[in-house]
Amino acid sequence: MFTAELTKPDGRRLTLYARAPLPVDIQAPSPFPEPLKGSPHLRWHPLRGEWITYAAFRQDRTFLPPPDYDPLAPTTDPQRPTELPAGPWDVAVFDNRFPSLDGSSRDPLPLIVPTAASTGHCEVVVFSQEGDASLGGLPLWQVEMLLAVWGDRTERLARRGDVAYVLAFENRGVEMGVSIHHPHGQIYGYPIVPPVPARMQEMQLRHHESHGGSLLASHIDAELKDAQRVLYQGPHAAAFVPACARYPYEVWVAPIEPVPGFAALTSGRRADLARALKTVLLKMDGLWQRPMPYLMAWYQAPLDGRPHPEAHLHAQITPPCRTRDKLKYLAGTELAAGFFAMDALPEAKARELQDVPISLE
Amino acid sequence: MFTAELTKPDGRRLTLYARAPLPVDIQAPSPFPEPLKGSPHLRWHPLRGEWITYAAFRQDRTFLPPPDYDPLAPTTDPQRPTELPAGPWDVAVFDNRFPSLDGSSRDPLPLIVPTAASTGHCEVVVFSQEGDASLGGLPLWQVEMLLAVWGDRTERLARRGDVAYVLAFENRGVEMGVSIHHPHGQIYGYPIVPPVPARMQEMQLRHHESHGGSLLASHIDAELKDAQRVLYQGPHAAAFVPACARYPYEVWVAPIEPVPGFAALTSGRRADLARALKTVLLKMDGLWQRPMPYLMAWYQAPLDGRPHPEAHLHAQITPPCRTRDKLKYLAGTELAAGFFAMDALPEAKARELQDVPISLE
Repeated sequence: MFTAELTKPDGRRLTLYARAPLPVDIQAPSPFPEPLKGSPHLRWHPLRGEWITYAAFRQDRTFLPPPDYDPLAPTTDPQRPTELPAGPWDVAVFDNRFPSLDGSSRDPLPLIVPTAASTGHCEVVVFSQEGDASLGGLPLWQVEMLLAVWGDRTERLARRGDVAYVLAFENRGVEMGVSIHHPHGQIYGYPIVPPVPARMQEMQLRHHESHGGSLLASHIDAELKDAQRVLYQGPHAAAFVPACARYPYEVWVAPIEPVPGFAALTSGRRADLARALKTVLLKMDGLWQRPMPYLMAWYQAPLDGRPHPEAHLHAQITPPCRTRDKLKYLAGTELAAGFFAMDALPEAKARELQDVPISLE
Repeated sequence: MFTAELTKPDGRRLTLYARAPLPVDIQAPSPFPEPLKGSPHLRWHPLRGEWITYAAFRQDRTFLPPPDYDPLAPTTDPQRPTELPAGPWDVAVFDNRFPSLDGSSRDPLPLIVPTAASTGHCEVVVFSQEGDASLGGLPLWQVEMLLAVWGDRTERLARRGDVAYVLAFENRGVEMGVSIHHPHGQIYGYPIVPPVPARMQEMQLRHHESHGGSLLASHIDAELKDAQRVLYQGPHAAAFVPACARYPYEVWVAPIEPVPGFAALTSGRRADLARALKTVLLKMDGLWQRPMPYLMAWYQAPLDGRPHPEAHLHAQITPPCRTRDKLKYLAGTELAAGFFAMDALPEAKARELQDVPISLE
């Protein structure tokens, strides 16, 4: 995998990833000529016991692109620069222009709740040069490359020293609030381990202490033996609607053996994980013959420098759909109580996805 | 407050609440002639360490009402029964026809994750006979009555023995997934203390043990002294955009002194709490001169029979709006990490609401 490290005119960093060597004279464009001024800050929520980040400058997103302008496509007209140059890159990562977390944040003024600088880092990951592509529709080598890129980003963020947890995710579809349809995801490097990964880490640690091994590995083992919700089983990776799905079409994708994060994947495991992921995404889009909206989140071990034998890299893909025509809204019980109510059985939804024919090649 | 206890033809219970005595011959209608067969069950999510409820029969909601049919209006045509009778009732509560939690649930078949019967109880609370009313637009006496009804329901659910936590909430607006516009809310009586109240309880207990008193009371005290985010301050109740708001127009409404739940409100406190609530809801609807969608959730002490000096009844009202024209979508960082990112400052949003003129009488 070849890379090129570039700096945009507004000071943001851009990394291009490619199968082929990249030209040495490639230049990083930006739609924004000036550096961004903004210092997000954290406030402590005493009742929930968690931090919230405030980036008020994000509401100044006054940039109104013309309808035919794709900010994530390669620049073709120097008068209308996008975020990316023309050139033989396959995947690209650049600093988010409107970061909720920013390593240069300064300590905020005191308030009636504890506050702190909102350090960390936010990146945008462009999956392809093609604006009408989809992650599931990319060739296997490119899905594999993306898994490698997520590993490279995690290692880079680990070296910063101000990042405690790296989450790679994709919000897909207008139903998820996405305004740019060019296939892309985001990476958040958090200054703390956020509540959901912290809770999962706690449950995994408890299991490791009492039973040894990985909690998720024993769950995967049980799913594969039970077989009724399995969507993919390869030599190294598996995908299934979990028995405890919180969303009707929720799917988990994971290496079968525990791996703490992307960077620890061997090439064989990465290749099989890419096949599992592509299988699931093609089935989701095939179910109703249209792109299925989803949130895809990849969970890894925290970046505290310690070994994490309890951690287990995996994706949770949660489409906000109940049926072909109905969305699953999160409302009272889910949001206010944190208690999910499902009106479908995971076994039935798994069968629907199992029945979707796909071709990986 | 007068009440009438009725049983619907399908076996569900209905309670009518009224200022005036109710006729003794009043009959409870139901749109559904037959009792519902369905036994929701719980599955354990090993990674998140929480229960999820599965009520697959809820998807059989085949009842397709005609466009002019309001199931929460009083019945006028016996051939088209609604959920409620005609008569001088003001607030009504009946068993949810499609409960996610049901005291008659039986133990489910074993699965690869732990399972349990999904006991507990789900109720619908109708705020008014008028389908085009809104909670904020009701007269103060009726808002007060609703607070008393929530207290009565909490006490009844406590006596069942299978309910550990009572959450009263209102999902309002199509943005929150609501299909029936007649003003109403829901009550969930959970068999366990769900994750969000459990976390808040934990933080409140920690504060009580180390500082004494109520964590929320000291937060309210700080908000009232700081004053810049306050929307209402009465002798007994307060409302404000909290300094740690997770949503731009988030507002908390609470008695100033800690009270563990609705049932412990004195009439003076209840009256002032009703004024605080009505003030906030009128301001929200007044901001853009149209009904603001929101989730309103009321948190109380758990029902374990023990005293809860750390608990503090309050509402968190969270509209899913960023601006007049933009929704706040929960996506990657909020849902997958549990880490909220705000692109507005609570101080600025509080000023917007403070500036909305309202009249309580």
